[in-house]
Amino acid sequence: MAMTGVMRPGHVQLRVMDLAAASHFYGDVLGLVETGRDAQGRIYYKAWDERDHSSVVLRQADRAGLDFMGFKVRDAATLERLDSDLRAYGVATERIKAGDLLETGERVRFELPTGHQIELYAAKKQVGNGLPTLNPAPWSADAERGIAPLRLDHALLYGPHVDKVLGIFTDVLGFWLTEYVLAPDGITKAALWLSCSHKAHDVAFVMHPEPGKLHHVSFLLESWEKVLRAGDIMSMNKVQVDMGPTRHGVTRGTTIYAWDPSGNRFETFCGGSQPYPDWEPLAWDWQGFQEGGLDYPQRKLHETFLSVVT
Amino acid sequence: MAMTGVMRPGHVQLRVMDLAAASHFYGDVLGLVETGRDAQGRIYYKAWDERDHSSVVLRQADRAGLDFMGFKVRDAATLERLDSDLRAYGVATERIKAGDLLETGERVRFELPTGHQIELYAAKKQVGNGLPTLNPAPWSADAERGIAPLRLDHALLYGPHVDKVLGIFTDVLGFWLTEYVLAPDGITKAALWLSCSHKAHDVAFVMHPEPGKLHHVSFLLESWEKVLRAGDIMSMNKVQVDMGPTRHGVTRGTTIYAWDPSGNRFETFCGGSQPYPDWEPLAWDWQGFQEGGLDYPQRKLHETFLSVVT
Amino acid sequence: MAMTGVMRPGHVQLRVMDLAAASHFYGDVLGLVETGRDAQGRIYYKAWDERDHSSVVLRQADRAGLDFMGFKVRDAATLERLDSDLRAYGVATERIKAGDLLETGERVRFELPTGHQIELYAAKKQVGNGLPTLNPAPWSADAERGIAPLRLDHALLYGPHVDKVLGIFTDVLGFWLTEYVLAPDGITKAALWLSCSHKAHDVAFVMHPEPGKLHHVSFLLESWEKVLRAGDIMSMNKVQVDMGPTRHGVTRGTTIYAWDPSGNRFETFCGGSQPYPDWEPLAWDWQGFQEGGLDYPQRKLHETFLSVVT
Amino acid sequence: MAMTGVMRPGHVQLRVMDLAAASHFYGDVLGLVETGRDAQGRIYYKAWDERDHSSVVLRQADRAGLDFMGFKVRDAATLERLDSDLRAYGVATERIKAGDLLETGERVRFELPTGHQIELYAAKKQVGNGLPTLNPAPWSADAERGIAPLRLDHALLYGPHVDKVLGIFTDVLGFWLTEYVLAPDGITKAALWLSCSHKAHDVAFVMHPEPGKLHHVSFLLESWEKVLRAGDIMSMNKVQVDMGPTRHGVTRGTTIYAWDPSGNRFETFCGGSQPYPDWEPLAWDWQGFQEGGLDYPQRKLHETFLSVVT
Repeated sequence: MAMTGVMRPGHVQLRVMDLAAASHFYGDVLGLVETGRDAQGRIYYKAWDERDHSSVVLRQADRAGLDFMGFKVRDAATLERLDSDLRAYGVATERIKAGDLLETGERVRFELPTGHQIELYAAKKQVGNGLPTLNPAPWSADAERGIAPLRLDHALLYGPHVDKVLGIFTDVLGFWLTEYVLAPDGITKAALWLSCSHKAHDVAFVMHPEPGKLHHVSFLLESWEKVLRAGDIMSMNKVQVDMGPTRHGVTRGTTIYAWDPSGNRFETFCGGSQPYPDWEPLAWDWQGFQEGGLDYPQRKLHETFLSVVT
Repeated sequence: MAMTGVMRPGHVQLRVMDLAAASHFYGDVLGLVETGRDAQGRIYYKAWDERDHSSVVLRQADRAGLDFMGFKVRDAATLERLDSDLRAYGVATERIKAGDLLETGERVRFELPTGHQIELYAAKKQVGNGLPTLNPAPWSADAERGIAPLRLDHALLYGPHVDKVLGIFTDVLGFWLTEYVLAPDGITKAALWLSCSHKAHDVAFVMHPEPGKLHHVSFLLESWEKVLRAGDIMSMNKVQVDMGPTRHGVTRGTTIYAWDPSGNRFETFCGGSQPYPDWEPLAWDWQGFQEGGLDYPQRKLHETFLSVVT
Repeated sequence: MAMTGVMRPGHVQLRVMDLAAASHFYGDVLGLVETGRDAQGRIYYKAWDERDHSSVVLRQADRAGLDFMGFKVRDAATLERLDSDLRAYGVATERIKAGDLLETGERVRFELPTGHQIELYAAKKQVGNGLPTLNPAPWSADAERGIAPLRLDHALLYGPHVDKVLGIFTDVLGFWLTEYVLAPDGITKAALWLSCSHKAHDVAFVMHPEPGKLHHVSFLLESWEKVLRAGDIMSMNKVQVDMGPTRHGVTRGTTIYAWDPSGNRFETFCGGSQPYPDWEPLAWDWQGFQEGGLDYPQRKLHETFLSVVT
Repeated sequence: MAMTGVMRPGHVQLRVMDLAAASHFYGDVLGLVETGRDAQGRIYYKAWDERDHSSVVLRQADRAGLDFMGFKVRDAATLERLDSDLRAYGVATERIKAGDLLETGERVRFELPTGHQIELYAAKKQVGNGLPTLNPAPWSADAERGIAPLRLDHALLYGPHVDKVLGIFTDVLGFWLTEYVLAPDGITKAALWLSCSHKAHDVAFVMHPEPGKLHHVSFLLESWEKVLRAGDIMSMNKVQVDMGPTRHGVTRGTTIYAWDPSGNRFETFCGGSQPYPDWEPLAWDWQGFQEGGLDYPQRKLHETFLSVVT
């Protein structure tokens, strides 16, 4: 948690072009738990070990991508304070009333210079992880249904003006920079990894001409062996894999990148460093990133990394 | 990090009865990196992936145990504020001047109702983890020298008045309760796991008649396979193992408990849940804890857990 | 496979005192696949990745233990030859007609000096592992149903005259000695690990006054992580664990020992060395075995190892 | 071991174009143990857990590739018998006198229809694995020096007339077919995996117009986590990776393919199925192999698989 009270990535709303195919993918293959459908036809999911009602919301649309990403904050007072702080910083915000998303309280939304819609909210119904809170077992059958990530972990977003995003996240929202990539010019920060916890990233950004683009939404697995199992399940279900299993140099995490049926990239991620805000951010120059940042064993920047987004 | 600005367990000072034997153990077997010795003869170590100068300090003494445990806070202003908040809460504090511990700034020390000396500090020299901050590899040779934990993770402390400790950590220092054990009376919280991050615990307490006792200091490993490797290295070096490898029910972490040459218990720990402050704490009743809390596969409370402390 | 044509441990018949409880345990908790029941009421199981009809047969009885252990040989000619070789060596054999065990051909049975009934057979119906033999996936849902071992791996048998067993297995059946333990006298081989493959053991023996005793039947898992998962599932199902998870010094394998509802010990085993017949056997003197043979990290000979058998 | 007495792949002799670079790679990066140099300038290595003197021999040459691959047989009588059996089958053999390879006895050499030189031998000096044979620890420091495979595991060879190779290995040498790939014609076996043990393969062949080509020599690792570690070490040493970490569909093994400094491909391999000779071979049709045979998670046949050999 940041000192500001921003706790974690809480939800993403994804656009999918075939809701039935997406429902099969997110529910049966990725193995999220469906927790509701709303009057608009949106489907809500949570990862099995999350406590809140939902972390992934699917919306039928004619193009894929990310509608918005929301961060849960500590409480209502924190939400008010951060709204005020954002406005004071020059970021326009709007309020979305409680109940617009199922079981979710009022949200404060703003647009980043990268074109992404970001939200803060303090309230979402807690539905638990299916285990008792008295004498719980370490896991349940849900932990082995499909890929079965523990939680929504982070998202990587592509758009212009990444430099301006840094200020909003670090000056206002209390995130800190854990790693960054320098553009070939050696000066511009072309990619940012930002944390509000001691995760290697709660959100990340890459400089890109088109605004509001999604590179991937990431889901946490427990182990490198679970990453292999995720790859097996992807193959059994003919999920198109982009890259991996491998290790990122940036964050040290292990990973598979693959695409949902609409072409939204997702990641099954494990591990990663656990930095603290007093640590010096790690830097990658362009050559270093190309060689060891994305796919550490292979030492290459897969062409799709910079070109394929939704 | 707590909203108060308490970041993490930063250091422990341990009493050892044979400094040479201890130095061999902490340096060569556990595989910490020695970073200094001071005029008092104390030896300083850090885990390889820590950035700060030191996290374990050994002091020659005629009985084993923990002198103090320190938490690093965000900055000097935070230190002042927390000192003030502690005093306002009725906790007496004292100042220990910068330099008393090598490369460490001023410390605010107070005694817990359990008899433990706890410190807060904002400054310690950053010496890095031996890898460059530009284009770093994910690990270095230090990551395979001895058991080679990533960091000091937490400590479990035994003493009376555990109930009063809860208030200090949650009301003043901004920790939250992640799990607890109910005494056989079904009412008293006999054991507390407290987090200032989204680790399952940064410090924990168990009710015990004698004050100021150490159950164990814990060191983080990357994987269950590294826990096995730690057990192998312990055996190769005739380190006395108390319990494990196994999984705790509480925290879900995997573990080995063993003893240093002076009888101070340490833990090589991996994993564990990653709770957030809005999660309901997990409760263990006495029977549930006995059966599944300590050694989940074996479903037993090893006799040494309650009886052997330093 | 031995040069004699002995391929592998093929089946064990276990006595259980409550067939319903045993069926729940072997089918649902251990996660074997039930493949048949016969007119005598015996229940047949296979591990998911085995191809033959059955490897574990349960028989209701008033005391627990092992009725017999069978090894599959290459073909009918091999069976005839080995029967002849056993008789020539002075081992009395009997024939059990095809069909006495479901889907199993004629068996050649003999009693070891340790009092165990051992069988050879060449024919058992192949039922496959539930995956196609054209373009198979690496695993199926059966691989995650319960503990889900890959196969029956070996058994450890207790009885007198272990020295005489060595000759039968090595001189006649073509096994070789991979490891052994010397009794406190420093001369007698008190325990033998014997292989007909390049597994660390296909069968093992420990010197014991009572004949015909079972120490454990062992089932193979893929990884140390699966051993942890097995321990979790044991705890979830209140299976009584004897020892582990840990690593054996002998064989290097990782292990949990636990008991079925009738008190028959079983093992969930992973790894182990892969010796060849030209390798010198590894020796353990009594002190070495006590300290590092059974439970390598803990360096202790658990009291139950020598005392609890069925 | 095959019933014929063929035990295992024992050695390969590789041509390298820069012996100093190769020595650094095989000794320091792959982490084999150098065991000798001969008068011709050849360098001998063994994997740490092998007992025999050497398994990899490097010869300076002006082009990369495999000079020969040798299989160790049970004893001198077996060698004589197999020589005779090969000749009776119509395979010309020659004798290479003891001592031609350091610490190695007489070898029987023959050329396969694929153009590869294959050898059988019965004697090679046993030098042990650096651990005592009394009360050994499970591993030594050599197990963590470089990538540190346990053993030479198998090789994949490319050449014409793969169908004729099948007969020699199965009819004469006692291997059996574990898996095969059908060419696009649906009839021709275009690739063969052959075992003389219960490994998924001790040697494999792929149909290829040029004779005597090497696809890769494979080295065994203990775990999927060690495969990741191997990938890290490759990257740290700028070893060029071809593919992986990933899982093969064929054999189920986990893998990285990479190239030594001369362009000889090697594999760091783990796991794989453990078939027995009575199991039906697994078949892959051309489409099935393309989609799931080589890189199971990615479901693709990397272009280099069919085109890059030495």
